[in-house]
Amino acid sequence: MFPDLLSHGAFKSEDEHRRDLCFVGRWMHDRGFVASTDGNMSVRLDAERILVTPTYMSKEMMIPDDMVITDLTGQRLSGLRNPSSEIGLHLLIYRLRPEVNAVCHAHPPTATGYAAAGMALDKPILCELIIGLGSVSLARYGTPGTPELSAALEPLVQGHDAILMANHGVVTCGPDLLTAFLRVETTEHFARVSLVAQLLGRQQVLSHADVEKLQVLRVRYGASAQPAEGRASEGRVGSDGRGPST
Amino acid sequence: MFPDLLSHGAFKSEDEHRRDLCFVGRWMHDRGFVASTDGNMSVRLDAERILVTPTYMSKEMMIPDDMVITDLTGQRLSGLRNPSSEIGLHLLIYRLRPEVNAVCHAHPPTATGYAAAGMALDKPILCELIIGLGSVSLARYGTPGTPELSAALEPLVQGHDAILMANHGVVTCGPDLLTAFLRVETTEHFARVSLVAQLLGRQQVLSHADVEKLQVLRVRYGASAQPAEGRASEGRVGSDGRGPST
Amino acid sequence: MFPDLLSHGAFKSEDEHRRDLCFVGRWMHDRGFVASTDGNMSVRLDAERILVTPTYMSKEMMIPDDMVITDLTGQRLSGLRNPSSEIGLHLLIYRLRPEVNAVCHAHPPTATGYAAAGMALDKPILCELIIGLGSVSLARYGTPGTPELSAALEPLVQGHDAILMANHGVVTCGPDLLTAFLRVETTEHFARVSLVAQLLGRQQVLSHADVEKLQVLRVRYGASAQPAEGRASEGRVGSDGRGPST
Amino acid sequence: MFPDLLSHGAFKSEDEHRRDLCFVGRWMHDRGFVASTDGNMSVRLDAERILVTPTYMSKEMMIPDDMVITDLTGQRLSGLRNPSSEIGLHLLIYRLRPEVNAVCHAHPPTATGYAAAGMALDKPILCELIIGLGSVSLARYGTPGTPELSAALEPLVQGHDAILMANHGVVTCGPDLLTAFLRVETTEHFARVSLVAQLLGRQQVLSHADVEKLQVLRVRYGASAQPAEGRASEGRVGSDGRGPST
Repeated sequence: MFPDLLSHGAFKSEDEHRRDLCFVGRWMHDRGFVASTDGNMSVRLDAERILVTPTYMSKEMMIPDDMVITDLTGQRLSGLRNPSSEIGLHLLIYRLRPEVNAVCHAHPPTATGYAAAGMALDKPILCELIIGLGSVSLARYGTPGTPELSAALEPLVQGHDAILMANHGVVTCGPDLLTAFLRVETTEHFARVSLVAQLLGRQQVLSHADVEKLQVLRVRYGASAQPAEGRASEGRVGSDGRGPST
Repeated sequence: MFPDLLSHGAFKSEDEHRRDLCFVGRWMHDRGFVASTDGNMSVRLDAERILVTPTYMSKEMMIPDDMVITDLTGQRLSGLRNPSSEIGLHLLIYRLRPEVNAVCHAHPPTATGYAAAGMALDKPILCELIIGLGSVSLARYGTPGTPELSAALEPLVQGHDAILMANHGVVTCGPDLLTAFLRVETTEHFARVSLVAQLLGRQQVLSHADVEKLQVLRVRYGASAQPAEGRASEGRVGSDGRGPST
Repeated sequence: MFPDLLSHGAFKSEDEHRRDLCFVGRWMHDRGFVASTDGNMSVRLDAERILVTPTYMSKEMMIPDDMVITDLTGQRLSGLRNPSSEIGLHLLIYRLRPEVNAVCHAHPPTATGYAAAGMALDKPILCELIIGLGSVSLARYGTPGTPELSAALEPLVQGHDAILMANHGVVTCGPDLLTAFLRVETTEHFARVSLVAQLLGRQQVLSHADVEKLQVLRVRYGASAQPAEGRASEGRVGSDGRGPST
Repeated sequence: MFPDLLSHGAFKSEDEHRRDLCFVGRWMHDRGFVASTDGNMSVRLDAERILVTPTYMSKEMMIPDDMVITDLTGQRLSGLRNPSSEIGLHLLIYRLRPEVNAVCHAHPPTATGYAAAGMALDKPILCELIIGLGSVSLARYGTPGTPELSAALEPLVQGHDAILMANHGVVTCGPDLLTAFLRVETTEHFARVSLVAQLLGRQQVLSHADVEKLQVLRVRYGASAQPAEGRASEGRVGSDGRGPST
């Protein structure tokens, strides 16, 4: 169960953020969103500091003292361990999205299967996904921990709260850690539903008119990512090279 | 484990119903039937009042005080939060089915995959499903929270205890909350079995004679939904556009 | 975790058997082998009495007092609830297999998908399955709770510790309840592996020579079911009507 | 959660290793990596002794006293139970890999499905798998507990930390038990991702240039298995006989 992460991130102490990262690490592992020492999460502590999970450690086994504090260039300010080797990915998102206070990176297996197939999760087949998350685009491949990966993600960060990274996994962000985590969960859930529909031989795509109604609801419910770009691709079908869904 | 939900709903206090909704919310989440803040459940407290889960909150994190009481038009009578935005769906079922005291809406991933493929779960391939639930029909798509959705569901509510909503998810009902929840579980279980059979390349459909024998058992065991309409569609094969199952 | 079911069933008291049935009921549900009120289990108490789970109750919610004692014709000797409506299935196995002291019936979703496709799990593709369980044959369909079902199972009971029942589920037996339960688990595990291999487009079937070596190991490890009949079908390939696996 | 397995295996007492084997046994079972009494794990206690799980026992139910100590020929030195019948597999790896202190054998269902299909998990479709594990090759089939199996594995042990055994399962090794276990987890996770990509109709294979960059990272992060052989097969596509992935 989610214990007491309800209060808004902005009102939490550093100690609470350290503890929350431990909880989210266990959830990530319990739900199979990471294996071994995969995955990393971070929280923006203030205008100059990021609290991030350590590298090369099972996210299920972390304790609050394992976390690392870095500045906005990724330099370690405190902590005994090294920060995640994917810190660059987190910093990119914090730089481009001032309203974002938490970032999660994981490898949920179904969504990561889409990423390994080079396919986005952008077909409008589930109404609540469109309201809640918009669409999940695919960033082209870049070697982890290099500027290649940041360059691949940069065009998508502004318009999406959840992005597939080709041959890699998923990255999400949000105003607080719980929201960022739940977006990983929603992305994997959507991938499962999409896969089932695909295995059944067809995905019944919503009409443009129906998608537009859902976009109105999305804005009303306060979506944080700008939907403009995401929407453009949502009406696109057959992006998997198998012809139009019907 | 299901703690102490055995006693019949009608003899429970409002406090017990609030607690039960919290339990069912956790089960929904633990079993992966909802992600993020998805899903909603309600209980009919008496002839004029519905106790319903709040909107925009993880169903795993609810406490009894989070629940909302509305009248039969959906107007909030008490509670600090807003009722589920899908309250209309619940009210429709309570209006059409006086013997129903609980409604559950969720997105179990396999059943929702059928809904995203525009396919009903109505082939007679599992004997106990026919005895216990009849069949699971598919309601056409309607934008959530609008009269469109109610109009799509209305023709199916009388004859079914579990309905797939196209591009959306599952709604179930029952004489008490536990029964309604277990019908979500049964629907997802049936969807998993159906998908495996479909992936194996064939679904071995029961004969009309065998289905009729099961319908007799269904009536003997006291099915609440009128089976007439459900039965009519059960003998139909090949509704997925892939030709008859054999 | 399995708590203290290690001691051999024959040395257990009736109270211990009642408690063990509750544990196994929870495991069945936790692992998704049953949904709702599905499934039933029994233990042979002595030469004249069977302890069986009650009908129409979630197997996750049972307490020891919910169990029912019947004679070998299924007549209730004690207990407040009604015995499982599938008691006939249990009695058939106890009659034909004097060394069997426990029977489990469940609907694990992948194995039940094979049953709904009318396909046995009898291809020799996993060495340890052949050593431990032999093969899992498919009994033809029979309406639950009728002599039809017993007639369909009767020819297979002697030669198998686990049987798929067409359009229904799985039944297993063993010298004690834990063994019978673990055979449900093994059957579902084997079904998962088989499905993955099938989805990958091929099942690599072991040669007759390799299967014979495994049968020697099976006998050495003390298999309870007579392997003669099971073995005959194991070399058969392409029983799913899709042509030979390669 | 992983309790306190963080400290390096080399500094643990025999009692701690016994307890750790029990924990890992439960994790194996909880995650569905074994069914029934499947699987076996061992730890190298010193230059002459191996601590190994017992045969014919559920790995979820072991207590520390169930473990067996053998010498490097598999002769039991202490313990009331018999050592795993697959002890030969463990001894082979300890002999060929002096830096290895723990071995795990299990049947995670998706990876075992690949093994039952006769397919390796060696396509470069996930960057972090290449960094962390290299590739997962397939050893040809050999009857369990015989020299056939050792002969099939021997050519692969030096170059791989995780190996699929045809028609059987997975074996992993590492400098300590936790690492060996996490490699089982990673192998199954990779199999799940690979299967999803395959079901989506294509696996997007990384270029040779991208794979080379990842191999540099792998060496930098201190991979224990020599990657030479693993790498050679990684650029190979279409090894499943279905033609090139695209």
